Amino acid sequence: MNQEISFIQREALKEKPATDSLGFGKYFTDYMLVMDYHSENGWYNPRITPYEALTLEPSAMVFHYGQAIFEGMKAYRTADGTAQLFRPEKNMKRLNDTCDRMCIPQIDEDFLLSAIKQLIFTEKDWIPQGEGTSLYIRPFIIATEAYLGVRPAKEYKLFVILSPSGAYYGSQLNPVKIYVEEQYVRAVIGGVGHVKNAGNYAASLKAQEKADRLGYAQILWLDAKENKYVEEVGSMNIFFKINGEVVTPKLTGSILPGVTRDSVIQLLKHWNIPVREERISIEEVFAAHERGELEEVFGAGTAAVISPVGELTWNDKTIVINDNQIGHLSQDIYDEMTGIQLGKKEDPFNWTVKVAQVEV
Amino acid sequence: MNQEISFIQREALKEKPATDSLGFGKYFTDYMLVMDYHSENGWYNPRITPYEALTLEPSAMVFHYGQAIFEGMKAYRTADGTAQLFRPEKNMKRLNDTCDRMCIPQIDEDFLLSAIKQLIFTEKDWIPQGEGTSLYIRPFIIATEAYLGVRPAKEYKLFVILSPSGAYYGSQLNPVKIYVEEQYVRAVIGGVGHVKNAGNYAASLKAQEKADRLGYAQILWLDAKENKYVEEVGSMNIFFKINGEVVTPKLTGSILPGVTRDSVIQLLKHWNIPVREERISIEEVFAAHERGELEEVFGAGTAAVISPVGELTWNDKTIVINDNQIGHLSQDIYDEMTGIQLGKKEDPFNWTVKVAQVEV
Repeated sequence: MNQEISFIQREALKEKPATDSLGFGKYFTDYMLVMDYHSENGWYNPRITPYEALTLEPSAMVFHYGQAIFEGMKAYRTADGTAQLFRPEKNMKRLNDTCDRMCIPQIDEDFLLSAIKQLIFTEKDWIPQGEGTSLYIRPFIIATEAYLGVRPAKEYKLFVILSPSGAYYGSQLNPVKIYVEEQYVRAVIGGVGHVKNAGNYAASLKAQEKADRLGYAQILWLDAKENKYVEEVGSMNIFFKINGEVVTPKLTGSILPGVTRDSVIQLLKHWNIPVREERISIEEVFAAHERGELEEVFGAGTAAVISPVGELTWNDKTIVINDNQIGHLSQDIYDEMTGIQLGKKEDPFNWTVKVAQVEV
Repeated sequence: MNQEISFIQREALKEKPATDSLGFGKYFTDYMLVMDYHSENGWYNPRITPYEALTLEPSAMVFHYGQAIFEGMKAYRTADGTAQLFRPEKNMKRLNDTCDRMCIPQIDEDFLLSAIKQLIFTEKDWIPQGEGTSLYIRPFIIATEAYLGVRPAKEYKLFVILSPSGAYYGSQLNPVKIYVEEQYVRAVIGGVGHVKNAGNYAASLKAQEKADRLGYAQILWLDAKENKYVEEVGSMNIFFKINGEVVTPKLTGSILPGVTRDSVIQLLKHWNIPVREERISIEEVFAAHERGELEEVFGAGTAAVISPVGELTWNDKTIVINDNQIGHLSQDIYDEMTGIQLGKKEDPFNWTVKVAQVEV
């Protein structure tokens, strides 16, 4: 795909919110990237256009049959004055994997990434400054065809919207309480849990609501077939440090292949810390705790980067991990990953991609 | 809920399409029902308003986390000059069951049904005349709040749109070829397959695409845990007549509880034909065929009412059912059900609900 990206200027720019009021996903920048798809044209008319409401027919297929998918990534403002992305090519690849599973036409990954860079260049002043802040990037695709038959749509729109985001945890990592869910399931092999389609998140709300009510921050999902093997936590992947070794559930087909998950595995290998991807049962996790060998548990995802787990409740039994303190390894990984993302540390993996010069 | 439904008149009415060009889900009537929800107000502002495009923020939660649900029902024009619905209270109940699972606020079922009746009364001239035609009714709810955090939305819109629909099968029932899917799954116990949320349909497209490619009309889904038990076919429930007895998969939690399914079961009981709801393996179905006992197979759903199955392919083995002819029982059920729906036959079950006088 080798198309010119047109630019539609807005009349007035918005006022930027104060960094300490950002939160997550509340504010959006001045511009967005939009591209259309029609089965007769392929993807066409890429444009950077004012962020504004969109108009759809009530019969637009996204409202009825749920063809809606997304990605999530961040742009960081570094201390040396550049805006940079973290492994964005992985998100482009996963977007296409999601498209494939959900019968949405493939995107030219290189083109989309270059268009996103252009959008971020345009919006570079929106990248917030300050510990833990970033510009959240949300590419998404929806089926726009006006038709009620059940089949893949013939018309779609792709959007990339940007939202300046505050620090996930304030100034430091906080261990969270996690509830092991046995009634509801997130995904099953042969289903769509390994891709980022919108429906997965709607399906997870009921269990999250239950966890909230019981006073837990997140859910730990088990596999749907045997209700036995650990899958992922909330919207993050999960890692266990047991007796000096790190274990994370392997990607069997119902687990989202997180970019942060993959980065943590590479980092551990780089540090010569044993790390294995394998099926691990919740029973095994509790047994390791019983033996005094469950040293650390943490989630890994784009939003929080690393999220230490302080308590785990399964079947009315609660275990406290590492005295409800952040583990050394969790902290080291967090420091290293955010250090690389913010350009404060060396990047031996070539994970970061520079986009633009920014004011420091 | 005891709210006045306001009426916003449109300037000019649309021209109605010719009955033989209707198809399904292509044309929409002049008006729709709309209602808003805000966590601080509950459901409010019910209105019958011109059918027109809607405007949403790019960050509207429906696009990102898939809170979108629907129902499907029909209004029929009867020979004696009334418009009538078929068991609409079942659809209202199921809509609320879906709301519950998807963390969408409950609707007042009686109020919604009366509002739908009012809409159909307004649009009664849109109910097509002619064998197999009807006015398709599509209630749906979407999350409209502009926010990217993963949690149940605080703002929703409910719509009811109407689409005049042609005959599903032309003038008579046609047996279809069905492919038993083993790679992809539709739903699992603990998931959302027993409710009508949009994401279920997006998740099913990939397997349907495969079936299309292989020359089959529909998919027969197996259970996700053991890949063994029959669940449903395409977007219908399924029935097997084996040695004089009818069997349909029981509602274990991953199968949609169809209104037509329930009606078929009641009708069979009324006729003193043995009918059982139980788990049935695909192996058993093929074994029954081997023994010469598989007499009929048919799907049951709102769209087609009854859809006879002529061929079933599983694991590269194909069986032909009832010589690829419509079975007597399938035909009898179809005739009885459509006869009741169209007011041509007695309705001993009180299934039909009259809405308005119409011209004959």
